[in-house]
Amino acid sequence: SKSYNITLLPGDGIGPEVISVAKNALQLVASLEGFEVAFEEMPMGGAALDAVGVPLPDETLKSAKQSDATLLGAIGGYKWDNNEKHLKPETGLLQLREGLQVFANLRPATVLPQLVDASTLKKEVAEGVDLMVVRELTGGIYFGKPRGFSTNENGQEIGFNTEVYATYEIDRIARIAFETARKRRGKLCSVDKANVLEASMLWRKRVTAIASEYPDVELSHMYVDNAAMQLVRNPKQFDTIVTNNIFGDILSDEASMITGSIGMLPSASLGETGPGLFEPIHGSAPDIAGQDKANPLATMLSAAMLLKYGLGEEKAAQRIEAAVLDTLNRGFRTGDIHSAGHKLVGCKEMGEEVLKSI
Amino acid sequence: SKSYNITLLPGDGIGPEVISVAKNALQLVASLEGFEVAFEEMPMGGAALDAVGVPLPDETLKSAKQSDATLLGAIGGYKWDNNEKHLKPETGLLQLREGLQVFANLRPATVLPQLVDASTLKKEVAEGVDLMVVRELTGGIYFGKPRGFSTNENGQEIGFNTEVYATYEIDRIARIAFETARKRRGKLCSVDKANVLEASMLWRKRVTAIASEYPDVELSHMYVDNAAMQLVRNPKQFDTIVTNNIFGDILSDEASMITGSIGMLPSASLGETGPGLFEPIHGSAPDIAGQDKANPLATMLSAAMLLKYGLGEEKAAQRIEAAVLDTLNRGFRTGDIHSAGHKLVGCKEMGEEVLKSI
Ligand SMILES: CC(C)[C@H](C(=O)O)[C@@H](O)C(=O)O
Ligand SMILES: CC(C)[C@H](C(=O)O)[C@@H](O)C(=O)O
Repeated sequence: SKSYNITLLPGDGIGPEVISVAKNALQLVASLEGFEVAFEEMPMGGAALDAVGVPLPDETLKSAKQSDATLLGAIGGYKWDNNEKHLKPETGLLQLREGLQVFANLRPATVLPQLVDASTLKKEVAEGVDLMVVRELTGGIYFGKPRGFSTNENGQEIGFNTEVYATYEIDRIARIAFETARKRRGKLCSVDKANVLEASMLWRKRVTAIASEYPDVELSHMYVDNAAMQLVRNPKQFDTIVTNNIFGDILSDEASMITGSIGMLPSASLGETGPGLFEPIHGSAPDIAGQDKANPLATMLSAAMLLKYGLGEEKAAQRIEAAVLDTLNRGFRTGDIHSAGHKLVGCKEMGEEVLKSI
Repeated sequence: SKSYNITLLPGDGIGPEVISVAKNALQLVASLEGFEVAFEEMPMGGAALDAVGVPLPDETLKSAKQSDATLLGAIGGYKWDNNEKHLKPETGLLQLREGLQVFANLRPATVLPQLVDASTLKKEVAEGVDLMVVRELTGGIYFGKPRGFSTNENGQEIGFNTEVYATYEIDRIARIAFETARKRRGKLCSVDKANVLEASMLWRKRVTAIASEYPDVELSHMYVDNAAMQLVRNPKQFDTIVTNNIFGDILSDEASMITGSIGMLPSASLGETGPGLFEPIHGSAPDIAGQDKANPLATMLSAAMLLKYGLGEEKAAQRIEAAVLDTLNRGFRTGDIHSAGHKLVGCKEMGEEVLKSI
């Protein structure tokens, strides 16, 4: 029977708790669908800094590269916040994304009917929101050179970064976005700041050029400031959004909060070939770490994305997705999404209920 | 008696309509408070492109520089959207900001009790929101060099921009922000991406250093992605926000939409010395231009900011602010903020009602 290697990166804060729950779910659906999964658990982020002094040990990157897919919990915490840049947990995450060349970050933001009240938006604005942010993940200002510190002609210290995109980087993320939109409702909105930035002007030009390969997808363009407004005004207008690394960072977090249930949202980071990286979009939540309070559903749904996009095991993915919905329908809620009339459970118990539903 | 020169830049779209209404209000409060105002109306944006072929004619910049303050309507429109960069209306606005050296952009976002229902956020989340975004306006990626287009080592076209801040640029905007917070509720949140960008690391370091001059102001730091979330989750947590040019562009628009009444929001752009620039934060709304449908209140309130920050005429400013509230209390609404039970009026009539209230 088929067998897959999965690298697990529990990371920091609530990471280990949510990963352990998701691991059980992967194990179970594998046995039900008749394939094998072998796990390799590796240190990453603050945990790796404490253990071996770097945020992404070589062995961790090697394991991720040689795996069929990697599932990450979360990284970071107050303890390492004032570290120098090369010793920040976040730097390890950026090195992992770059090392795996996962340039396409898919971030769905869906308002589940069960959780529509969790949104701070009015019910009629929030209900039915179902959008996907396709964020470029290995380019732009996150990786652009030159970068660093220097002194200007007046002897003043300066800090600088470079926002830069080459045509091939834009073309490949645009294609992923058009493919994604095609499988959804056929609408793609490209977000940029082409009225000011040259990097955005090239972005808009290339996205427009690639559009001719996808005549069935309806393309529109929007400035990033307007997009930040429109997500609040009427998020339902969006189907698929494609944008650069930094705008995608901001807009996908805004979109996730619009759903009101950030503890529910998964993400997939994919490359041209090679294994993908899957992670919940929430952070390491150090304030509730180790207290069995975390919501493991975002990691469960990330495991489902891993099965679907990473291994091509659609049926196993659907089993997890259906089980998550069923568990919500049966009234179980962790603290972050709890409201009157529902059963408040911890991370472990939520995990066990999902296993029952599977 | 005192006399002030005010440059008026009607600009494009609804710009001329809202400026003409605000001009009457300035005229009226001047006569009531016993000072004179002389207006010089100059072309700017698309209107200037059509008239003389550049978005900011030299005479326009000269008039603004020699004035005591400048009031701008709005610029831009579909007609000029595909112009080359140096022939875009937006480029004229950036040249004006740079020419006047107005590095501090104050953008209040307030939910008025009269208009709380206009927000897409739940009433309990929206009511009482009263925050101020202090955006750096003449630096960062908007103006950083090098910028442009080039080819990389593989012969691929690239587009690039430079995000760069020098200590003096951060120090001066930080001081304005601390002063602003001190006059408000004493809380300042500095927004950056210091976990990734060197320009943000320097930003955080300098803001932290300047904080020692303002021991009475409580300073916090937040990453921009988190700030975009927190504005949706709980906007009331914010008093004053200080951030760079591009993050300020995005977050101030998001914040303004949270109030639900973007047609109500003014802005002030101030320099170290020299005249300021005052403008509504809404755009030129070409779809309703010339139809007497625009909401002139944002421009009225911008005129109030001009009186207060630009001319030091606090009492005249208060007259306009009070009149705007009184007009709302008397039930008058333009289309963008209209709801059942209120009197729907056009731009001109709204202007006349404010004059009556004054
Ligand atoms: C932790 C940080 C470096 C990261 C990013 O900015 O990409 C995070 O915010 C995310 O969105 O995954
Ligand atoms: C028109 C554009 C150049 C401008 C900006 O990005 O600064 C606008 O969005 C604003 O916020 O005033």
